[in-house]
Amino acid sequence: MRNLALLTDFYQLTMMNGYLKHNIHEDIVVFDYFFRKNPCDSSYTIIAGIEQVIDYVENLKFTEEDLDYLRGLGFDESFLSALKNFKFSGTIYGVPEGSIMFPNEPVLRIKAPSFEAQLIETALLNILNFQSLIATKASRIIEAAEGDPVFEFGLRRAQGPDAGIYGARAAVIGGCSSTSNVLAGKMFDIPVVGTQAHSWIQSFDSELEAFEAYAATYPDNCLLLVDTYNTLNSGVPNAIKVFHQLRKRGFEPKGIRIDSGDIAYLSKEARKILDAAGFQNVSIVASSDLDEETIYSLKIQKSAINGWGVGTNLITSSNCPALGGVYKLSAIEKKDKIIPKIKISENPEKITNPGYKKVIRIYDSYNNAQADLIMLEEEVIDTNKPLTIFHPIYTWKKKTFNRYSVREMLIPIYQEGNLVYPRKTVSEIRSYAKKELDSLWPEYKRFNRPHLYKVDLSEKLWNLKNQMVSEYKERDAF
Amino acid sequence: MRNLALLTDFYQLTMMNGYLKHNIHEDIVVFDYFFRKNPCDSSYTIIAGIEQVIDYVENLKFTEEDLDYLRGLGFDESFLSALKNFKFSGTIYGVPEGSIMFPNEPVLRIKAPSFEAQLIETALLNILNFQSLIATKASRIIEAAEGDPVFEFGLRRAQGPDAGIYGARAAVIGGCSSTSNVLAGKMFDIPVVGTQAHSWIQSFDSELEAFEAYAATYPDNCLLLVDTYNTLNSGVPNAIKVFHQLRKRGFEPKGIRIDSGDIAYLSKEARKILDAAGFQNVSIVASSDLDEETIYSLKIQKSAINGWGVGTNLITSSNCPALGGVYKLSAIEKKDKIIPKIKISENPEKITNPGYKKVIRIYDSYNNAQADLIMLEEEVIDTNKPLTIFHPIYTWKKKTFNRYSVREMLIPIYQEGNLVYPRKTVSEIRSYAKKELDSLWPEYKRFNRPHLYKVDLSEKLWNLKNQMVSEYKERDAF
Repeated sequence: MRNLALLTDFYQLTMMNGYLKHNIHEDIVVFDYFFRKNPCDSSYTIIAGIEQVIDYVENLKFTEEDLDYLRGLGFDESFLSALKNFKFSGTIYGVPEGSIMFPNEPVLRIKAPSFEAQLIETALLNILNFQSLIATKASRIIEAAEGDPVFEFGLRRAQGPDAGIYGARAAVIGGCSSTSNVLAGKMFDIPVVGTQAHSWIQSFDSELEAFEAYAATYPDNCLLLVDTYNTLNSGVPNAIKVFHQLRKRGFEPKGIRIDSGDIAYLSKEARKILDAAGFQNVSIVASSDLDEETIYSLKIQKSAINGWGVGTNLITSSNCPALGGVYKLSAIEKKDKIIPKIKISENPEKITNPGYKKVIRIYDSYNNAQADLIMLEEEVIDTNKPLTIFHPIYTWKKKTFNRYSVREMLIPIYQEGNLVYPRKTVSEIRSYAKKELDSLWPEYKRFNRPHLYKVDLSEKLWNLKNQMVSEYKERDAF
Repeated sequence: MRNLALLTDFYQLTMMNGYLKHNIHEDIVVFDYFFRKNPCDSSYTIIAGIEQVIDYVENLKFTEEDLDYLRGLGFDESFLSALKNFKFSGTIYGVPEGSIMFPNEPVLRIKAPSFEAQLIETALLNILNFQSLIATKASRIIEAAEGDPVFEFGLRRAQGPDAGIYGARAAVIGGCSSTSNVLAGKMFDIPVVGTQAHSWIQSFDSELEAFEAYAATYPDNCLLLVDTYNTLNSGVPNAIKVFHQLRKRGFEPKGIRIDSGDIAYLSKEARKILDAAGFQNVSIVASSDLDEETIYSLKIQKSAINGWGVGTNLITSSNCPALGGVYKLSAIEKKDKIIPKIKISENPEKITNPGYKKVIRIYDSYNNAQADLIMLEEEVIDTNKPLTIFHPIYTWKKKTFNRYSVREMLIPIYQEGNLVYPRKTVSEIRSYAKKELDSLWPEYKRFNRPHLYKVDLSEKLWNLKNQMVSEYKERDAF
C-alpha cells in the first residue's frame, strides 16, 4: 500500500501546526463531506471510493523521510513529533459504498480532534470526488445502453495511472461489465476484456491473415476488429471467412468490433451481411468516442450495436470532469456539548447546514425512494404517524407521507479510531448500487432534464439554520 | 517505485501472446506517439511526462503475483515465461521534456520487438497524454495571468491521487510557481504554498482572534483568508488590524486571499482599503473557480488581484479533459530494411504518416520558430541552400526560407535498451518549456483563435504517403 500521508494541501499542515501551538488541536470538531451539485446534469450521485478512503486512513503514517522533508520546510520538532505519533482516533459515519446520494446531504460525517480531521480532508475529497464522479457517469452510459454490456476502455486517456485504475473500479460500480485495464482487474477482481488493435492487423501481410492468426490463437474468444481497411468491403467479409473456418473447427465466433466511421450505418449493414452468412448470434461492438448521448442517439437510429466500449468520455467524465464535493465544519464539541457551526455566504446556496446531522430516506411500500430528510442526529421519526416534509426555500411546498418506511443512510465506518465498516468486493458494491438505482423512479434516471429528487430539512434543523443565519445577519456579519 | 507492469490494456497481452505463438514477437516494429489536435484550442502542446515514462520502463517487471494473476486469466506458461524475462531492449527517440510540439508530429518514436513495443503503449499514452494536457493548460493560465504568480491548488478535485501529484508536476512545468500538494512538493522538489482555510477561521470565536492566532504562529508568512463572513466589512478591516500589529513586531504582512464573491469588485475595494491603511505592498490572491478565460476577464476589468490560486479547471483541464495522443505503427523492419506502414482511413485526417521519421524545427535568425517539417530519418537539410516547404493538403501554399537554422527535435532516450536521456529536475524542465514558449510568436500563444503553426511534410515523405494511399485505394481497400 502506498504511503499517502503527504497527499494533502500544505494549508492543512500549517493549520494543524497552528492548532497545536494554540492548544486547540485536541478540540473535537465535526466535518461533513457533501456536494452541492450532481455531476453531468444527473439527478443523483453514486458514492464510490469509500474503501480507498479506508485504505488511506489505515495506512496513514508519516515516515522519517516525510518528517525530514517537513523539517526542511520549517516545521518545528513539536509538530513533527505530533505527526510521527499520528493515528486517526475519530468517528466517521458514512453511506455504504454504492449508495445514491443527493446535493447537500452529508455523505460522510467526520468527528475527530481538529488535528486529525484537518489532515484527512484533502485525500478524502480527492478519492471520493473522483470515484463518485465516474460511477455516476458510468451509470448514465449504462442507462443509455439499455441492457447491452458496456466495457470500460479508457486507461490510455485517463488522467494518470490512478485515474485509470480507480476510474475502472468506479465504472464497474456504476454498472460497466468489465474493463480493459489489467491492473484494475487484478486489484479489484473485476473482469478484463480485450482482443486486438489495428497494429495486430497491420503486423500481418493481409487482414485475412491477421484474422486467421488471431482465430488460431483464440478460437474460443474470437472478436475481430474490422475497420482497419474497409469495414464492409474487407473487414466484415474477411471476418465471415474466418468465422466459417472456426465453426468447422467447432468454435462459435464471438463478434466484430467497429472503431471508426459511421457506426449507425456500418453496424446495420454489417448485421445484414453477418445474418445472411448465418452468424445471427455474433456481437457487434462499437468503440469510437462514445458517451451516453451518442449511445442514446445510436439506439434511436436503430444501430445494430450490442456491446459498447467506452473510453475517454467515461474515464474522464469529459463533459463534467470534476465532482465539487466539499468538507465543511458543521459543529464543534465543547465539554461534551455539540455546538453547531455554520458557514455563511452572500450566496444562499453556499450557506452550510449546521449541526451534527443524519440523513433519512423515505420509501413507499414498493421500496421506491420518495424523498430524503436531513435531520439532527437526536431526532426520531415515529413511522406510525404521518410525516410531513417541506421544501427548505419554498416552504409552502409540502408533502405528507402516510404509509412509508424510513432508512438511516449513514452507518458507522470508524468508531473512535476503530474500523467497523463491513468491507465489500467491487462486485458486491456494484450489485448494491444497482439496487439503489432500482429504487429510483425512471424519471430521476433520465439523462436529460431529470426529475429532481426532494431533499428537505427537518423542521428542527431548518429552524436552527435560519436562526443562526439571522444572528449573523443581525450582527451585520455578512 | 510502484510496479505498473500490469498497467496496460488486456488486448496488449492477447496480442503479445499472439505474436509469440506466431513467432513474430521479435520482429522489429516502429511506433510513433503523436496527437492529432492540440488541447484546449491551443495552437501548441507542451510535452510533459517523459521522466515518468522512463520510470515506468525502468521498473517494468512482472512479479510472481502478476504472473499468477495472468495464469488465472488463461495464459500459458510459454507466454508467462516470456513476461517473466521481460526487459525493454528497444530504441526510443523523443523530444526533451518541456518541448513544444504540434499535431501529427512524432513526439516519441519507439523501435523495438513487437512484443515489447506493444506492452508499453498503454502506460506511455496514459502518462504523456495527461501531463502534456495539464502543462499546456497551465501555460494558457500563466499567459492570462500576465506575469502574476499562479498557484496550483487542485488536489481535492483531481482525478485521483496520481492526477493530483503528476498534475501538480505538469502545472509547474507549464509555468505555475508552486502547488498546494505537499507530496508533489516532496517528490519533485517544487515549492509548496498554503496558509489557512475557512475551518481555521471558524475554529476561533471570532475572525479577529483567528487572524491574530495565525499571525502569532506565522508572523513572517501572514496571508489571511478574508471572505469567511463579509470580505469588505469584516475580513479586510480585521486583516488590517492584524497587519498593523505585525508591523509593530517588525514583520511585513504578505497579503489577503479572497475565495468567493465578485472578485473584480472585492479586489478593487480591498486594494483601496489596504492602500489607505499603508499596506500598498501586500498581495491580493484570488482562488475561486478560475481558469484562463476568467483571469483574462478579471484583468480586463482591472481587478486588483496579483496572485492566482487555480484548482479544478487546471488540474482536470476542465473544458478539455483529455489529450487524444495515439501510438501508431509506422514501420516494420525486415532483414535490416525499414518497410513503411500506413493506417488508412475514410477520414483523411486519420491517415497516418508512414516510415521512420524525424521532426525538424526551422528558426529565423532571432530564434523564432518558423515552421516544422516532418521528414524521413535519412533526409538531410543543407542550410546553406534555401529551403522551400509546402502545405501537405493545399500544396500551392509554399514558403521559402533563405536565412534560417534547423534543429532536430527528437533525441535518443533509449538506445537498444540503455537509458541515455539526460534526466532533469522539474525546475530545469520548467525553464526549458519557458524558452520553448519564448521561441513562439505571441500570435501562437493567444488563447482564443491562435495563429496556426505550420507543420509540413518533406517532399519525400509526402510522396511516400500519397503513393501508399493510392496503392490502397487502387486495390479498393478503403
